[in-house]
Amino acid sequence: MKQNQITAEILCVGTELLMGNTVNTNAAAIARGLAEIGLNLYHQTVVGDNPERLREALELALSRADVVITTGGLGPTYDDLTKETIAQVLGRRLVPHEESQRWVAEYFRRIGRTPCPNNQKQAMMPEEAVVFQNHNGTAPGCAVAGTGRWAGKQVVMLPGPPRECEPMLREQVLPYLQAGSDTRLVSRCLYFYGIGESDLAHRLDRLMRESTNPTVAPYCKPGEVMLRVTARVAEGQSAGALLDPVVEEIRREAGEWLYGINVGNLQTALVHLLLAKELTIATAESCTGGLVAQRITSVPGASSVFEWGVVTYSCETKRKLLGVSQKTLDTYGAVSPQTAMAMARRARVKSGADIGISVTGNAGPEPSEGKPVGLVYVGLDCDRCTTAQELHIQTMAHDGREYIREMAASRALHLALETARQMVK
Amino acid sequence: MKQNQITAEILCVGTELLMGNTVNTNAAAIARGLAEIGLNLYHQTVVGDNPERLREALELALSRADVVITTGGLGPTYDDLTKETIAQVLGRRLVPHEESQRWVAEYFRRIGRTPCPNNQKQAMMPEEAVVFQNHNGTAPGCAVAGTGRWAGKQVVMLPGPPRECEPMLREQVLPYLQAGSDTRLVSRCLYFYGIGESDLAHRLDRLMRESTNPTVAPYCKPGEVMLRVTARVAEGQSAGALLDPVVEEIRREAGEWLYGINVGNLQTALVHLLLAKELTIATAESCTGGLVAQRITSVPGASSVFEWGVVTYSCETKRKLLGVSQKTLDTYGAVSPQTAMAMARRARVKSGADIGISVTGNAGPEPSEGKPVGLVYVGLDCDRCTTAQELHIQTMAHDGREYIREMAASRALHLALETARQMVK
Repeated sequence: MKQNQITAEILCVGTELLMGNTVNTNAAAIARGLAEIGLNLYHQTVVGDNPERLREALELALSRADVVITTGGLGPTYDDLTKETIAQVLGRRLVPHEESQRWVAEYFRRIGRTPCPNNQKQAMMPEEAVVFQNHNGTAPGCAVAGTGRWAGKQVVMLPGPPRECEPMLREQVLPYLQAGSDTRLVSRCLYFYGIGESDLAHRLDRLMRESTNPTVAPYCKPGEVMLRVTARVAEGQSAGALLDPVVEEIRREAGEWLYGINVGNLQTALVHLLLAKELTIATAESCTGGLVAQRITSVPGASSVFEWGVVTYSCETKRKLLGVSQKTLDTYGAVSPQTAMAMARRARVKSGADIGISVTGNAGPEPSEGKPVGLVYVGLDCDRCTTAQELHIQTMAHDGREYIREMAASRALHLALETARQMVK
Repeated sequence: MKQNQITAEILCVGTELLMGNTVNTNAAAIARGLAEIGLNLYHQTVVGDNPERLREALELALSRADVVITTGGLGPTYDDLTKETIAQVLGRRLVPHEESQRWVAEYFRRIGRTPCPNNQKQAMMPEEAVVFQNHNGTAPGCAVAGTGRWAGKQVVMLPGPPRECEPMLREQVLPYLQAGSDTRLVSRCLYFYGIGESDLAHRLDRLMRESTNPTVAPYCKPGEVMLRVTARVAEGQSAGALLDPVVEEIRREAGEWLYGINVGNLQTALVHLLLAKELTIATAESCTGGLVAQRITSVPGASSVFEWGVVTYSCETKRKLLGVSQKTLDTYGAVSPQTAMAMARRARVKSGADIGISVTGNAGPEPSEGKPVGLVYVGLDCDRCTTAQELHIQTMAHDGREYIREMAASRALHLALETARQMVK
């Protein structure tokens, strides 16, 4: 069967998902992986740790899809019943799996803990299963073919904790599922800053509506939109020939907001540009409280471009640690373009970096020094300019504080990216 | 009908969820809200922007549940077809909704943009719907009662973007659904640090297995476990009488790892304790790159306890900005308990805070200065002690760097919390 005729379905098992304390990141990770290897995905379902509802949901999924991928319920506790239920539906017995028994023992030895009696339940596997080793926990995964009514169908079981599920998916399950594919999906991800999703969709309406290979799909997060352009490429066919014309058309329509292709996010684009140009950057943060530094240093390799950042919440700290003058603070206040520029300049001068960026503002929840929630200044200083931008970040969301901090940090990173583009060391 | 006999179901619509570029945070937020008001939830489903599959999934959901809550597909673009499809299934026409037309116009005025022609499509509503205003975007939500085959059933439609969906849910939909309830759910959340989920579950096995009111359910994230103890309380009944004995039993079995009840997370517990004791804290971070400061300052009110933090990535910056001695760095290296302690001490002395905490280590992806990935030292300094803890953070996950940073930051926050508990100003 051709890969693009195989339909998969995701079935996540876990009462914690239905209680809402856990966000289902596994479903997204699996969906992304399936798209990459060209399997179709039309449904994704969550049920609790309830054998009867799991059985019903599994049978519905098996009736619609060739491969059902489950997560969760492989743990050591009494309510982890996924493996037992699925084996029963597929007509497979559970048998002790020696290699898994050794893995579990070895895992506990490595982390220096003693296995509980329950852990050996995790080493029971459906007969004839392909077993996937768990490098980050105790529950192995597996792929099991159905029998009888479900002959020709297959269930892949993954553990629930994302840091066990995702590596197992990437390292073992996707290669296992991909074996035998005759097409592949190739994507380019275009990152935009400063334009809303509906505005972008309006500009690209015809393209998004009519283009089928490649497809063009938007994804947004606060302050940013990403367009994923995806081509289905046959053996020997060139992905570029399909992708290039569409990317060029998007560039013509919305190039002014495009900040990078396949760059991942603002901080990665910035760090890679700084590395390429051998430039360095320093941060001075007030209301973002370290978020700009944290986003920059989340990028591997950041240590070559970033070595200096301060979090200066109070006026006193802005003065003492950073050296912003008392006069600037008294005359204009902590939340002002003048203070933002002074913070950026002092960060650059004290650190010896090429670029200094700063954020000062009121992230809420209460107005402060007469400045409304959402008023933020982003400052930048380099050898050719000192600048500050004023933001009014409107939100009524319950996580307004985090939203304001994220939006302000994004603006600072984008300002640094645009500035670094025009600089030469 | 009693609230605890009402069954709800979540149906999320969006091809972006099936492509995996968007994590379904809405489903978790809705599930949490439904649990709080005591509705039962057994299924949650995702389908793409495909009218036929949406219709099928909706009919299945309506056959199982009294209330179906949908997210997504209310946007302005051509593939946003949720409202049209649902109205059709429920036997309702779409009619222009004057108030929504005014909201859309007003929203665009406020953000200073011009509506596209598509935006007026968003102001069409099913007849007799209860409409929910969107304070964070252009798509109103609504609740619509079914007719004919689906009489007595109800569909609630929410917009897809989380920052539109979640506030609408909290502020409008939950109060709307709760009207007329005769029981409520009351939860206590117990937060543990330093014990694994399976170990905790093993200690509390009988309790978790047998207790039905309250229920006891575990949720884990890296390095932490939270137990939610939830009682269903009738009018006039005391929640404490149900919850207190179970919480006491948990305390007896696992009290040594319990760091707080209803505290939310480590940083909130820390900030609230520091506020209560009028203590202050300062940070000096190397491999966590601002994450500790960012987590502390994410808590409203943090400005009273935290005003000073530095990110010192290189040895030079540790020396110049912080004042760690060249001798310490030369003799022991940047990743050493001595440097961690010196960083914490210098942070405390320079800032004048009561507690200084530090993190230095190798978050990867490559070994550095001969120190393996995952070796981290957390330092703390206060007027009665200076200490450093050595961590070996094992991970083979593809996001290993972020995992190591999160685990190291959590340990620093927990160390500060434990220290602050024993301090008096």
